[in-house]
Amino acid sequence: MDKVSVIEKLSLFQDHWNPRIVGALNGQHVKLVKFKGEFVWHKHDKEDEMFYVIKGQFRMEFRDKTVELNENEFIIVPKGVEHRPVAEKEVAAMLFEPVSTLNTGDTKGRLTQEDLEWI
Amino acid sequence: MDKVSVIEKLSLFQDHWNPRIVGALNGQHVKLVKFKGEFVWHKHDKEDEMFYVIKGQFRMEFRDKTVELNENEFIIVPKGVEHRPVAEKEVAAMLFEPVSTLNTGDTKGRLTQEDLEWI
Repeated sequence: MDKVSVIEKLSLFQDHWNPRIVGALNGQHVKLVKFKGEFVWHKHDKEDEMFYVIKGQFRMEFRDKTVELNENEFIIVPKGVEHRPVAEKEVAAMLFEPVSTLNTGDTKGRLTQEDLEWI
Repeated sequence: MDKVSVIEKLSLFQDHWNPRIVGALNGQHVKLVKFKGEFVWHKHDKEDEMFYVIKGQFRMEFRDKTVELNENEFIIVPKGVEHRPVAEKEVAAMLFEPVSTLNTGDTKGRLTQEDLEWI
C-alpha cells in the first residue's frame, strides 16, 4: 500500500518497447513503457489493452484508421483488433491490461518481451 | 476505438464524490472523479482499487498509516483494506477498478452512488 510515482519510475529505464510492471490489481498489470518508431502489427486475442500518454505523443494505427494521442489522453484497443503504435519522438505511456498480455500479441519476434521486470 | 481526453472529460462535471465512467476493458472500468473533504471509511471485499492523481493532491488514510499523493502518483488499495480518501483542496483522480465496484464499498449511505454516468 505504498504509492507509486510514475515520473520516478520512468527515470529508472531508458530502453524502448520494453514495458516495466509498476502495479497489479484484479488480475491486471499497470505497466510503463517508452517507445519511439514503429512497432509491429499485432493483436491480442483475449485481452483489451489501454494506453495512457504520460509524456509526448504517438499515433495508434489500425487497419482502417489512425488515432493521434497526446498527453493525458488514452485509447482502449479491444481484443482481436490489429494495431500498431508509432511515435515520431520518444513517448512515455502507462498501460493497463491483463497479467496474461504479451506485448507483441500474436506476432512473436524480435520485439517480444516474455519476462517483464517489476520496478 | 476513439481516444479519450481526460482533461476534456473532467471539464464536463463539477460535483464531488460522484465518479463518471470513461472507459471499460477486461471487466474493469476507468473512472474520473473530483473530490474535496473527507470521504467515509469503507472497504471493498472483492475489488482492488487504483487511484491515479490527475490534478491536485490528496491523502489516502488507512487505519495504521496515511499516504500523501501528488500528481502523476497512484496507489492501489487491496481488497478488504479499510481506507478513506481526504483532500484539503479539490483533486481530480482517475480510478481503475472492477465493474462491480461500489464507491462506498461496504458502507452504504449518503455518498453512495449506485448508477454511474458514462461520459
